[in-house]
This record gives sequence, C-alpha cells and structure tokens, in this order.
Amino acid sequence: MLIIGEKINGTRKKVAEAISSRDADFIRELAKKQFAAGAAYLDVNAGTLPQTEPDDLVWLVRLVREAAPEAVVCLDSANPEALKAGLEEVKKSGAPKVMINSLSGEQKRLDHVLPLASEYRAELIVLALDDRGIPETVEERLAIARRLIGLCREKGLKDEDLYLDPLVMTISTNTKGGLVTLDTIRAIKAEFPKVHQTCGHSNISFGMPLRSVLNQSFMALTIQAGLDTAISDPENRDLKAMAMATEALLGMDRHCLKFNKAFRARQIGPLA
Amino acid sequence: MLIIGEKINGTRKKVAEAISSRDADFIRELAKKQFAAGAAYLDVNAGTLPQTEPDDLVWLVRLVREAAPEAVVCLDSANPEALKAGLEEVKKSGAPKVMINSLSGEQKRLDHVLPLASEYRAELIVLALDDRGIPETVEERLAIARRLIGLCREKGLKDEDLYLDPLVMTISTNTKGGLVTLDTIRAIKAEFPKVHQTCGHSNISFGMPLRSVLNQSFMALTIQAGLDTAISDPENRDLKAMAMATEALLGMDRHCLKFNKAFRARQIGPLA
Repeated sequence: MLIIGEKINGTRKKVAEAISSRDADFIRELAKKQFAAGAAYLDVNAGTLPQTEPDDLVWLVRLVREAAPEAVVCLDSANPEALKAGLEEVKKSGAPKVMINSLSGEQKRLDHVLPLASEYRAELIVLALDDRGIPETVEERLAIARRLIGLCREKGLKDEDLYLDPLVMTISTNTKGGLVTLDTIRAIKAEFPKVHQTCGHSNISFGMPLRSVLNQSFMALTIQAGLDTAISDPENRDLKAMAMATEALLGMDRHCLKFNKAFRARQIGPLA
Repeated sequence: MLIIGEKINGTRKKVAEAISSRDADFIRELAKKQFAAGAAYLDVNAGTLPQTEPDDLVWLVRLVREAAPEAVVCLDSANPEALKAGLEEVKKSGAPKVMINSLSGEQKRLDHVLPLASEYRAELIVLALDDRGIPETVEERLAIARRLIGLCREKGLKDEDLYLDPLVMTISTNTKGGLVTLDTIRAIKAEFPKVHQTCGHSNISFGMPLRSVLNQSFMALTIQAGLDTAISDPENRDLKAMAMATEALLGMDRHCLKFNKAFRARQIGPLA
C-alpha cells in the first residue's frame, strides 16, 4: 500500500498558521514525520487565497524537498498558476518524480491540469467526477474514468502514472455508498489493470459512530477490491496495521516479511 | 453475521474443571454471557473421554437450555453415542432447532453424523476435509464440499441448513493460506448460494504477531467473500465491531440500523 501523506494541508488550522507566519520548522517536521511513518508521497496543499497561493506553495515545496528529499511531492491545487510554480520548484530541486492532485472531468481542470501533467510528465490523481458532481452509480463513475484515462493517454501519460480515485461518500446518508466505491474499484481494475487506485478512506464514516473501526474495515475491503494507494495520515497506526495485515492475508506480502518487519520496528502494533 | 459461541468447550481448562466438578453455575454463566453478547448459537463440546462424554454432554445441554433457552444448541462431538444422547436431550427440552458440529468427508463422520443429522433434521456444519486431511487447493476443498452437499441433499437436508466451513490455515507457514480460504468461500457462494458459510477466524493468525489485527482484517475479507457465520468468542468486542462495520459498509445493514443500535447499547465500541 503506497501512502500519500495528507497532513501538509492549509485547510488545517495549524498548517494555515504555519504558512502565514512562515514557520518553516513546523512544516519540515510534518514532512519528516510523515515520511518516517511510511508516506512515500507527501501531498502539499497551501489552501490559501489565489494571490498568495503560488508563493505559499513554492515555499512549502522547498521545505518538503529539504526535509524529506526521498518523498515524492504531490502538488494539490486547483490554481493553475500555483500548480505551475510548484511544478517548476520541484523540477528545479532535481526531484526525479512529481505528482499532481488532481485531474477530474471538470472543464477547468481539464483545461489547466492536463497540459501541465503532460508537460512535466507528472503522475496524476484522477477523480471520477465532472462538472455535474460525483455520480451516484458505478456506471457513471466508470464512464468518467474511461473518458479521463483516454484523454490522459492521448496526452502521452502512461496508465501506470495514473491514480484513479473512485470517490468515497459516507454510508451515514446512503447505505450503498461503500458498495458503489468498491464496485467502481473492481470495474476499473478489470478494465484498466495498470492504473493505480487511491482514495481517502475516512470519508466513508462521516457522521457515524466508531469511525476508526469503519475506516479500518473499509481499508481491508478496498484493498481486496483492488486499491493500492491511500491518501491518509501515515501516523494513524491502526489504519496502517490494518492495511499491512490485509496485504499479508491476501498473499501480497511474501512470507509476511513486511508485516513482521514493521511489527519488529514498532511501526505497527503497540508503541511501548 | 450469525455467531456460534465457542466458549463451552471441554478442551479449555476451566470448562474441563467445571465439567468434572459439575459446577453448573460456571456453565450457565458461560451460556448466558455468550447469548447476551450476541451468540445466537452456542457450541457445546464436552471434550471428555468416550465413556463419560454422553453423560457430560447431556449435563451441559441441560444447563445451556436452562440458561439460554433462546439460543440454538450446537452439539460438537465426534462420538456417535454422545451426539445421539445430546440430540435426544435437546429434543426432549422442546427446542425448535439443533445444530451438529460437524460432518466432514471422513468416513467415520459420514457413517455416524449424517444419519443422525437426517433423523433429527439438524442444521449441520460441514468441513471441507476428508480422510486425507485438509486439502491445500481451492479445487480440492470445493470437490469435497460438492460431494458432501450432494450426500446431505440425498438425505433430505436443505442447503439452507448447511454451514460449510472452508477451513482456515495460518498464513505464518503458507502465505497463500488466506487466499485459499477466501477463494473457496467465493466458489461455494457461486455454486451453492443457499448454503451458509462459517469459519473460525483466529486460526489465520496462529504463530503471527498482532493476531487481533489479522483476525479483524480476515473478518472483513471473509464477509466480503460471502461468509455469513462465525464460530467465535462473542465477547470479543473488536471482532464483533469489525463484523458489524463490514456489514454496514457492504450495504447489508439497512440504514446502518444494527450498527448504530449495537453502538448505543454498548455492544460494540468503548465500554465506558
């Protein structure tokens, strides 16, 4: 399970404060800790106003590249100018890889994100939604995914550089929400076996009690359906343990080596 | 998820002591607690020597029927005489239902258990093994299951009264162990949709660290594959919460009513 660390996000209060006060240590610490906890990718979202976002994003990228040089930066912005500035900064730093979060079927994203992804050979998170919003059915999500994957291929992006997000809606308002996501994953996996799939698991339990148990169950179910990447908090030990346990049970961890190693290194299981 | 409570088992030291000292309160308590925790069926295994087993089993059945009259007794014995005595005792008590644990492809079991199951119209746990042991492959387990289900049908047993146990082997010695069980469940489900499926989850993690996480993940995965019954400790709150969460996520719990109700009744989640 590839983890995209979600914590450097300006919509979180402490991160917003660190950005506005230019508290570099706070950001460096967030990057280091997430990488140490197993995030191979670090999402970077300034979440600030359009005028300042390009500068803010560049500042964040510089700190992340410094603090966790082996992590892949995942630029998370709907602002084309900020995205372009972030991509330039990553390139200048000599990073071999960069990811963009995200393309969708929304016309604005298609106009701005797709050319940039192509120009910078970026890996790309692709959301199964368009200007009409998030479709309720598997068929409609699949239709959007098909169209977007086709457009990416036309632009020279490889399937293995795409990370399809089937989208997750809480079961508290629609009990079929989990099934739609799981069935979308299975359908994408069958039709596009080389395309990665990712999601944010915690949306599934919004408004429900015992969210941690629901999120852990959904982690196991999505991996069994074909998900290979999670946008999550890598320091959530329970979720990480559940992901590694599931991979061991599904024969994806030869001789359970990764699971046993993570346990011995105290990356999963009790801390003390 | 139907739970068959596993705790009244003479191979457990305290239960063995209670049987030999005829400590009725201890057994009644075990029955009551398991039923209160959600076990609709209670496995009753005397685990004693052949000479005393019929008397011991009858004694246990009487106590369980007294203490948890709404629970279905699941008679767990390889001894035909004890099984017959237990079945008579259940019948005498006026119970509308009884279960036998278990039939397998072993010739002895076929000779003794099948006629009794037929005579008493018992529900029946059917193990996918025979005199050669537990097969390593899905195909071999499926072949045994097919044969046994066929024999049960010939004896007039209905598919919906059968509980196929696909068998669970630890992943610590063979990483493919989990997949074989999951694929067997899926194959049985496809071929015999009315046959229930059950297993003991904890075998999957024997010899591994973090057994509880592995067992919980396996609970989610087996339910997604088609399992609907577990032979387990109903007082294991984590495993129960994982089973209920998984059913909610898979759309098997309308409006998440059962999950929310169990949470409010503190049957799952933190106790205090």
